[in-house]
Amino acid sequence: MWEVTADTLEALAIGTGILGTGGGGNPYLGKLEAQAQLRLGRTIRVVGLDEVPDDALATTVGGMGAPVVGVERIQQGEEALRAMRAVERHLGRRFTHVLPGEIGGANGIQPMIVAAQTGLPVIDADGMGRAFPELQMDTFTIYGVRPTPGALSDQHGHEVVFDGIADAVVLERYARAVTIQMGGAAGYAFPPMTAAELRRTAIPGTVTLARRLGEAVLAARAEHADPVGAALRATGGRRLFSGKIVDVERRLVGGFARGVLLLDGLGDDEGRTLRIDFQNENLIARASDGSILAVVPDLICIVDIDSAEPITTEIVRYGLRVAVLGIPAPDLLKTPQALDVIGPAAFGYPDVPYAPIPGRYGGWG
Amino acid sequence: MWEVTADTLEALAIGTGILGTGGGGNPYLGKLEAQAQLRLGRTIRVVGLDEVPDDALATTVGGMGAPVVGVERIQQGEEALRAMRAVERHLGRRFTHVLPGEIGGANGIQPMIVAAQTGLPVIDADGMGRAFPELQMDTFTIYGVRPTPGALSDQHGHEVVFDGIADAVVLERYARAVTIQMGGAAGYAFPPMTAAELRRTAIPGTVTLARRLGEAVLAARAEHADPVGAALRATGGRRLFSGKIVDVERRLVGGFARGVLLLDGLGDDEGRTLRIDFQNENLIARASDGSILAVVPDLICIVDIDSAEPITTEIVRYGLRVAVLGIPAPDLLKTPQALDVIGPAAFGYPDVPYAPIPGRYGGWG
Repeated sequence: MWEVTADTLEALAIGTGILGTGGGGNPYLGKLEAQAQLRLGRTIRVVGLDEVPDDALATTVGGMGAPVVGVERIQQGEEALRAMRAVERHLGRRFTHVLPGEIGGANGIQPMIVAAQTGLPVIDADGMGRAFPELQMDTFTIYGVRPTPGALSDQHGHEVVFDGIADAVVLERYARAVTIQMGGAAGYAFPPMTAAELRRTAIPGTVTLARRLGEAVLAARAEHADPVGAALRATGGRRLFSGKIVDVERRLVGGFARGVLLLDGLGDDEGRTLRIDFQNENLIARASDGSILAVVPDLICIVDIDSAEPITTEIVRYGLRVAVLGIPAPDLLKTPQALDVIGPAAFGYPDVPYAPIPGRYGGWG
Repeated sequence: MWEVTADTLEALAIGTGILGTGGGGNPYLGKLEAQAQLRLGRTIRVVGLDEVPDDALATTVGGMGAPVVGVERIQQGEEALRAMRAVERHLGRRFTHVLPGEIGGANGIQPMIVAAQTGLPVIDADGMGRAFPELQMDTFTIYGVRPTPGALSDQHGHEVVFDGIADAVVLERYARAVTIQMGGAAGYAFPPMTAAELRRTAIPGTVTLARRLGEAVLAARAEHADPVGAALRATGGRRLFSGKIVDVERRLVGGFARGVLLLDGLGDDEGRTLRIDFQNENLIARASDGSILAVVPDLICIVDIDSAEPITTEIVRYGLRVAVLGIPAPDLLKTPQALDVIGPAAFGYPDVPYAPIPGRYGGWG
């Protein structure tokens, strides 16, 4: 168990931002809200998966929406809590723990706010080890946790509860349609999970990983050392490319920000180019000769070349000088069962095989 | 109190079909399902609004969707019941009565099926006295009943519960978006209402009106008398036009069937033409000189010129010989408060004043 401080939140905002792989929304506003909660005297505790009692009932909480429209609207602070209360009323049971559905981006911070509001501990685990654009793309539902009951709520207090939905792809369609009606952003809570389900399906240690990643970057900045190198050491990743953003093609399709980035190489990569396709998150990084440097589910993270500040899909723009990091996906994302849902084919690249980046997620093991 | 028989259902199918004013879906499949329920030995009782005990808890049940896609899918028989059970679980209370949200079309029959399945009585009242295309267009919400909690369910057992929504227009948006995701058709249950709320806001006697209308048409057919005249006497309506359908322009927009019908006059109307605009339901009937013969909320009903069989929006086609009936709207639809929601301006005709057809709805009073 560890307690979250204002400093931890600074680190978490950087770590979750990098692990967002371009998507997941900017954690900045969530960090401010969580820090405000701490100043009110509230506490946020993070507990390990092995510390969760057998009779626990947990749910992921966060925000749903396209980053382009959603980033400034999903952090009002009450939406995810209200969604959680709606599921509790529906179940007739209270939750004992919350956790991030995705450690990447704003949703890596959002459970901290709900934890401060409720006093519930945050479990040190998530369902993606990164960010993904659709809600069925988590290890909970991939490994058989029933996706409902769940709920969405918005800043007007509107509540929509889903139940009886066994297929998370169907829930994704319903929830996305409701989110669009809610103005493009909503707080969510789902699915209810027991300790046994979590121990079987969650990716453990990811809140700690995001914290350590952020702390490593902050320490390197303070020491005028190499923040990008520190990020690579903290995550088990490798540098795929250094370059300048020379083109950004972005459009909003069905609630998602889709597009392509083009980079011209700098330093060792001078004379080479890189193309990155994204759907909220970065999906595939291709060199000018067509060779694939990294592909989903491995993490393709764009950071400022000097500070390692995460560059998300909604803020990426011409002229930024960036490093592109490739981080091996967690093992739970690499099984055939998982690749069916979050492999290249699931994102519209049926001809791209998944060739894993060598190494272990987080440098673990 | 009266009990519904197979014969009553024949009459109700015709009466609800005519009162559907072109929309509300075809009651034919619902009639067959309700008759099948009766053959299983189940009973369907209809009780007057004055027979409803003070501690009753009622809800409207029915199907939501565009008639063009929905007519054959909203009558599976279990969707509305499942939606009702979802609201009960959400409330932690059981309903004691059901009633039609709209007496017009398939939704005038649907509560009979739920009544047979559950043994609950059907209240002899509804919220429209006809059919309307959107759910906020009922007297319950117009006169202040809170529209949620409510629920939708589909043939796969998917359940979506709405709560915390004070504005029925917002609920309409959410419910329509979910209905589209459910394949264009869903069963619904909402809002929960007390006896006091019903007595204040419901249009009483409309199930009996639909039954008597159908019985009058059937009797006239059996006697080789004038079914159209019988329909007019049973409803307090007048014949607006007799003619042949010469053009049908129809398109599906946002889940609604919108379009225009053109008719060439027959008999006394020889040499004249009529234009009818519809959005699921018929909205406005205009003569060739531009004069308005009838406009929403008054009922514009198209029936076969010989048999008075109702002609709905989804089956209207070139060559049909029809009578167009104009029936005065119920008084509860004629207040300024109601006209804001279901008057000509609400349907996109801001320059058309509501000039009521003389007489009383149902020939009452």
